[in-house]
Amino acid sequence: MKNTILVVGSVALDSVETIHGSTSKALGGSAVHFSLSASQFSPVQIVGVVGQDFPDKYRGYLKRRNISLAGLEVMPGKTFHWVGKYDQDFKNATTIATELNVFEHFKPKLNGEHARCGVLFLANIDPDLQRKVLDQMGKPRLVACDTMNYWISLKKQSLLKLLRKVDMLFVNEEEARQLTGEYNLIKAARKIMKMGPRGIIVKRGDAGAMLFFKDNVLSVPAHPIERVVDPTGAGDTFAGGFMGYLAAAPDWKDFNVIRRAMACGTVMSSFSVEDFSTKRVGGISKKEIDARYHKYVGALRIK
Amino acid sequence: MKNTILVVGSVALDSVETIHGSTSKALGGSAVHFSLSASQFSPVQIVGVVGQDFPDKYRGYLKRRNISLAGLEVMPGKTFHWVGKYDQDFKNATTIATELNVFEHFKPKLNGEHARCGVLFLANIDPDLQRKVLDQMGKPRLVACDTMNYWISLKKQSLLKLLRKVDMLFVNEEEARQLTGEYNLIKAARKIMKMGPRGIIVKRGDAGAMLFFKDNVLSVPAHPIERVVDPTGAGDTFAGGFMGYLAAAPDWKDFNVIRRAMACGTVMSSFSVEDFSTKRVGGISKKEIDARYHKYVGALRIK
Repeated sequence: MKNTILVVGSVALDSVETIHGSTSKALGGSAVHFSLSASQFSPVQIVGVVGQDFPDKYRGYLKRRNISLAGLEVMPGKTFHWVGKYDQDFKNATTIATELNVFEHFKPKLNGEHARCGVLFLANIDPDLQRKVLDQMGKPRLVACDTMNYWISLKKQSLLKLLRKVDMLFVNEEEARQLTGEYNLIKAARKIMKMGPRGIIVKRGDAGAMLFFKDNVLSVPAHPIERVVDPTGAGDTFAGGFMGYLAAAPDWKDFNVIRRAMACGTVMSSFSVEDFSTKRVGGISKKEIDARYHKYVGALRIK
Repeated sequence: MKNTILVVGSVALDSVETIHGSTSKALGGSAVHFSLSASQFSPVQIVGVVGQDFPDKYRGYLKRRNISLAGLEVMPGKTFHWVGKYDQDFKNATTIATELNVFEHFKPKLNGEHARCGVLFLANIDPDLQRKVLDQMGKPRLVACDTMNYWISLKKQSLLKLLRKVDMLFVNEEEARQLTGEYNLIKAARKIMKMGPRGIIVKRGDAGAMLFFKDNVLSVPAHPIERVVDPTGAGDTFAGGFMGYLAAAPDWKDFNVIRRAMACGTVMSSFSVEDFSTKRVGGISKKEIDARYHKYVGALRIK
């Protein structure tokens, strides 16, 4: 189970409108976007909750990607439903409705197999729940988490308790600044390291991503995409590619491994924005991933 | 004269305030920032205008960097003076005053030596003037220009006439969008290519830069800087490093050469923001440049 990733987070139905069209109750949620991406590199198990309305076809879609749904609880009621809209800059979603439904009462329960997973990704949920998941784990060799502005404002102490126990934190620029009070991302990352994580990934949308790991700073560009259709889940897809690659590697602390993981995250997220919901990443081939990875990494090899 | 760069643009005095302090009538202007950067790689000649108040020490400062000031005309009156302020995000300057002074009457006049320069950089001035400069040139092997939102709005036809005759255009994201009506930068660049330039560099501040050259697209990150003091002139410093490197190369159309030029531009602009005015770039050693270049390029060599 050393290389198996456990992800705990939302499984949702998303209704999204962008300049290129719209979807209604399409498959979404942080655990889903993460899993579809990570499963290209390593086995993945989801712990999450859905309502009785969660379509069987979505379940099949995930299973076909070898994502274990043994931890996907079905509760009476409806599945978490998010309704959002993006402008042409795709930078900030306008939330039209957040119907938490069964997700409001999510209490992650791990079975023995979950607890033995070597790698844990705590997607963006209440930091108290993230901590409870961690307490149920055996001895994972790599723990990463995501969070959001909401928890930084309302549950900072809980979040700080969690951060002491994680290896890697995923944030965006605003979250890094909000968490530390530092505008400069290098300074912010240094402060976050003092809170616990030895690695910080700052996701910057079309400006790429920054990695801070011990004394290393690495900034990578986004892979340029000509037709951005839907950015929903791009951050979780990045985390999936990154964590999936690390989970498969013999030594995730090797900086060369981590740099390749940044490229995997970038490449996977570049696919995710090319179509609505999980369409692009869910249907992708290893060959397509390899081709774009080599194109991306090759372009940056300045000689 | 094949490798000598002629730059035509502003020579100014800048009074700038940022969170780290302020300067009063410090050396500035697009031609200055460009020259100090480019002269690290190739010989540079400036054509510009200053008033009688332009300090001799600034003249000496440029000359010591082997920048020819034979084309720096002195007119009765005062030097162009810009007063601006930046917030902590350093993204947009607030202009407090723009005193054009003698620059308002700038009519670039080239001597025979200028006309024989192999490389021309038309910094951001009225596109009609940029065209008049080009008309005075012999047969430069590389012509690049910069522009700004003001000219795109007010003198678009003049700008379009100019673009037909240039090899490379430097713009920022908003200018690329304004010029083409395309939000996506790949689409925008493709439209600009139809206007004339075969190369487009989109400067994106701390998000790095994008290069479009024939069928190639390259996105490079900024070099992360922990203490940004003053971003004034960073774009011209980028252009200086880029053009300086290309001018020194035997074949500037070689894509490997252009990629290295992108790294040179990135590295030079990363130095420029570390101190006020031209302090950092004006005092820099080749050794410092080489060290940062290798660090930057090495970090991106994902293996």
